Amino acid sequence: MGINFKNFLSSQKNNNKMGDYQSLDHLDGVAISTISANLYNNTRDDLVMFYFRDGANFASLYTQSKIISENIKWNLSQKTKKIYSLIVNTRNANTFTGTKGYQSLQKIADLVSIKLTEKQKNDDNNPEKINSHHVIFGCTGTIGEVFPLEMIKRSIPNLLEQIKYTQNKYIWTKAALGIMTTDTKPKLAMEECKIGSAKVKIYGIAKGSGMIHPNMATTLGYVFTDADLSNDILKKLLKKNVTNTFNAISCDGDTSTNDMISIFSTGKANNQKILNFTDKKLKEFDISLNKVLLNLAKRVVSDGEGASKFVTIKVKNSKTEEDAKKIGFSIANSKLVKTAIAGEDPNWGRIVMAIGKSGIEFNVQKLSIKFGDLKIVINGKLYEKYEESIVKEYMKNYAIDIEVDISAGKKAFTVYTMDLTKRYIEINADYRS
Amino acid sequence: MGINFKNFLSSQKNNNKMGDYQSLDHLDGVAISTISANLYNNTRDDLVMFYFRDGANFASLYTQSKIISENIKWNLSQKTKKIYSLIVNTRNANTFTGTKGYQSLQKIADLVSIKLTEKQKNDDNNPEKINSHHVIFGCTGTIGEVFPLEMIKRSIPNLLEQIKYTQNKYIWTKAALGIMTTDTKPKLAMEECKIGSAKVKIYGIAKGSGMIHPNMATTLGYVFTDADLSNDILKKLLKKNVTNTFNAISCDGDTSTNDMISIFSTGKANNQKILNFTDKKLKEFDISLNKVLLNLAKRVVSDGEGASKFVTIKVKNSKTEEDAKKIGFSIANSKLVKTAIAGEDPNWGRIVMAIGKSGIEFNVQKLSIKFGDLKIVINGKLYEKYEESIVKEYMKNYAIDIEVDISAGKKAFTVYTMDLTKRYIEINADYRS
Repeated sequence: MGINFKNFLSSQKNNNKMGDYQSLDHLDGVAISTISANLYNNTRDDLVMFYFRDGANFASLYTQSKIISENIKWNLSQKTKKIYSLIVNTRNANTFTGTKGYQSLQKIADLVSIKLTEKQKNDDNNPEKINSHHVIFGCTGTIGEVFPLEMIKRSIPNLLEQIKYTQNKYIWTKAALGIMTTDTKPKLAMEECKIGSAKVKIYGIAKGSGMIHPNMATTLGYVFTDADLSNDILKKLLKKNVTNTFNAISCDGDTSTNDMISIFSTGKANNQKILNFTDKKLKEFDISLNKVLLNLAKRVVSDGEGASKFVTIKVKNSKTEEDAKKIGFSIANSKLVKTAIAGEDPNWGRIVMAIGKSGIEFNVQKLSIKFGDLKIVINGKLYEKYEESIVKEYMKNYAIDIEVDISAGKKAFTVYTMDLTKRYIEINADYRS
Repeated sequence: MGINFKNFLSSQKNNNKMGDYQSLDHLDGVAISTISANLYNNTRDDLVMFYFRDGANFASLYTQSKIISENIKWNLSQKTKKIYSLIVNTRNANTFTGTKGYQSLQKIADLVSIKLTEKQKNDDNNPEKINSHHVIFGCTGTIGEVFPLEMIKRSIPNLLEQIKYTQNKYIWTKAALGIMTTDTKPKLAMEECKIGSAKVKIYGIAKGSGMIHPNMATTLGYVFTDADLSNDILKKLLKKNVTNTFNAISCDGDTSTNDMISIFSTGKANNQKILNFTDKKLKEFDISLNKVLLNLAKRVVSDGEGASKFVTIKVKNSKTEEDAKKIGFSIANSKLVKTAIAGEDPNWGRIVMAIGKSGIEFNVQKLSIKFGDLKIVINGKLYEKYEESIVKEYMKNYAIDIEVDISAGKKAFTVYTMDLTKRYIEINADYRS
C-alpha cells in the first residue's frame, strides 16, 4: 500500500506508456501541503491541502449517483463566492457515514478556518477572515467505514506547517500521489495560453482507477488556474469541457458516490475581465482547459485497475451525439470486448454484439468497423480482404483504436477505456485486505 | 474443448452445487438426435435435432439486440402454425454472416425437410408433407465466422439416422451437452402437472454461460410439453414466465445476438382444449412452466463463466417492479460488487454504490440491506450490532443472498447472478484459441 515518493519518481521512467506527464511549476495564488495522517496505517501521503491565500473563484461538478458522500453534501451546502481551501483525504470515502460523517467535516473546517485565519494574521499585510464555509472537501476510499476524524484533526497542525507557497514539479507530484487510492501512477497535466494579452496557466491533477464511469463528473479532478474568471464562467467552461473528457471515459462501468471535479481560479494573471462566456478572448483558454481535462482523463483510463491496454472507441456518423455515446459506452463497458482486447484477440464479433445491445436503431447494412487503419467490417459485411493474422498483429499494440461508423447522420463521440485483465480481479477481490 | 459424454456423467457427481438435475424421461411426440458434425474439429456433439413427427405448436421469444443472427431472421420469417424440427448447432453463431449465412439455413432446411418427408413415408401410416418453413434453428458460438454449411449438410444423413423416438435421461443429457459452448454443465429441468384431469409433462434444456444479460429472451432455452396448447396461449405463457426467470438473470451484462427461448407442445397428453389464457385449468401448468424456466435460468447463472458463487439479489418495497429490476441489475452487473463476492469480502459499500448509480429515486434514510439473515444497513445506517467477522463468515457460502429494501412502495424483483473471477478472464481472453 505504501508509496515511497523517492523510489516512485525513478520507477516511473520505465512505466510511461501514456508519455511522461509535464513539468508543472509555480502557479501564483495556490499553496499546497501534502502529508501522511497515517490513514493507511503507514507513512504514505494521504492528506492534501490546497490553500488559496487570497481566495479563489471556483466551480465544481459532482457525481449524479443517487447516493452521495457526506463531503459532496458539505460542498453543495457552502454558499460562498470564494474558496480558501480544498482538503482531500484518501482511504475513506466518507459515504454512508451519516450525520457523524458530515459533522466531522464541520469540525475539520472549523479548525482549519481558525488556523488559516491565524496564519493570515501572522503572514499577511491584509489578513482575510476565513470561515468554515470557505473550505471544501474531496474524499475517496472505502464506503461505509467510520470517517477518521481524530486522525485528521491531529494532523492539521502538521498540514498547516508543511504548506508550500512556491510549487515545482515535485510538490505537484507529491500532491497527485497523496490523493491516490488504487492508482499506480499520479495524474498531472498542464497547458499555458492567453486570455487577451495575459499569459495564463492551467494546471490539473486527478485520481481514479476504479469505480469509473462518467456521470457528470467522474473520479477526483482538480484544476487550478491563475486566470481571473468568475464562478459563472468557470462553471460553464467546466460543464462544457467535461462532456468529451471526464464524461467520455469508463474503466469498469461503476459510478462513484464521490465523483468531483473542480476548477479554482486565483486571478493572479491579471487578465482583462471577461464578462461573457461567449467572449472570443476565452477561446484559447477553452481549448487549453479541454486539453488539460482530456490529458488527465486519459491518464485515469490508462491507469484503470489492471489495465494493460488503452482503448479509444470513436463512433461516428450517428444521428445524435447521444446515440454515438451510447454505442461507445456499450462497447467500452462490455466485459467480453474488454477481455478479448486483454487477450489480444481480434474478436470483432463481440463489438458487433455490443453495438447491437446498445439499442440504437441504424441500418446494419451500412455498418463499418475499423481497428486502427485496418478495415474489418465494410457496409455490414466482413471486409473481403480481411486477414486475421494482420489484425492479430495490430492487437499487440498498447493503444487500440476502434472506429465504428453507423452511417446514420453526422454526429460523433469518442469514448476511452482499457482492457479487463486478471489483475483487475486481483485488485478488487481483496481491495480492503 | 471436447466433452467425453461417459466421463462427464460420472464427473458431475462432485460438481452439483445447484443440486443434480432431474431425470427427464420420455415425452410423447418428441424425437431427438445428437451428433458431432465436427464443428469443433473433434468428436464432441455439436449438432442437435428435435423432431416432432406429428408437428408441434410453438412459441418463441428472441433477443432484443439491434443486431440479430441469421437464424433468428430465418425463424421470424417462417409463417407456419406447426413446427416439425428444431435444429441447434454450436461453435458458430451465424451472426454477421450476411445473405450467405441465411441461404445456408435455407439449404439445410430444404435438405432436412425432404429427408424428413421421406422418413414420414417410410415410417408412418399418415405421412405429413414437411417443408423448409417447418424447420427452425438455434445457433450459438462465435460471431462473424463463415457458417459451416458443408460440414452440417454432410452430417444430415447421420443426424437423421440417429433419431431416437423414445427418450430417457441419457438422451436428454446428450442433447443438453450437444448445445453447449463454454458451459461446463448441461442444464435440464422438468415438472409434471395437470391440465384439467390430464397429466402433462414440461421438459426443458438450456445453454448459456457468457453473453448473458436478459433482454426479452436470453441464451438458448427449449421447453417441450406434451400438453395440447395453441400457439397464442404458448406465446402468452412464455412471455409471462420469462419475466422473472430468464429475464431475471445476468452473468456478464452482455446481450447475445442469438438469444432464443422456445416452447413446443406436441399435444399428445390429450388434455381438454384450452381456449383462454385466463382459464383456471391452466394455473398448474403456468406455475410448473415457471418452475422449469427458473430452474434452467438458475443453472445458467450457476454455470456462468468462471462462477464460484451463486448470488440472489432481491430488491423489495420499490414503487414499481421496473425500479426494483433496475436496482437489482445495477448490483448484479457491477464488476466491483462481483469481484468483492469472489473475494468473499463483505464490502457492502459497493452495493450502496451500485444502488446509487441505478438512478432510482428513493429515501436513503429508509434503505436497508441484508446478507442472508444478517442485517447490514438499517434505515440508512450501518446496523449497530454489525460484526464484520460474522458477515465475512457468511461470505464463504456458495449461495449468497442479498436483500435490498428501499421502502418506497410494495413491488419487488429478484435477480440472479454470479461472481466475477479470474477464471472469467481466462475463458474470455482466449475464447477462440
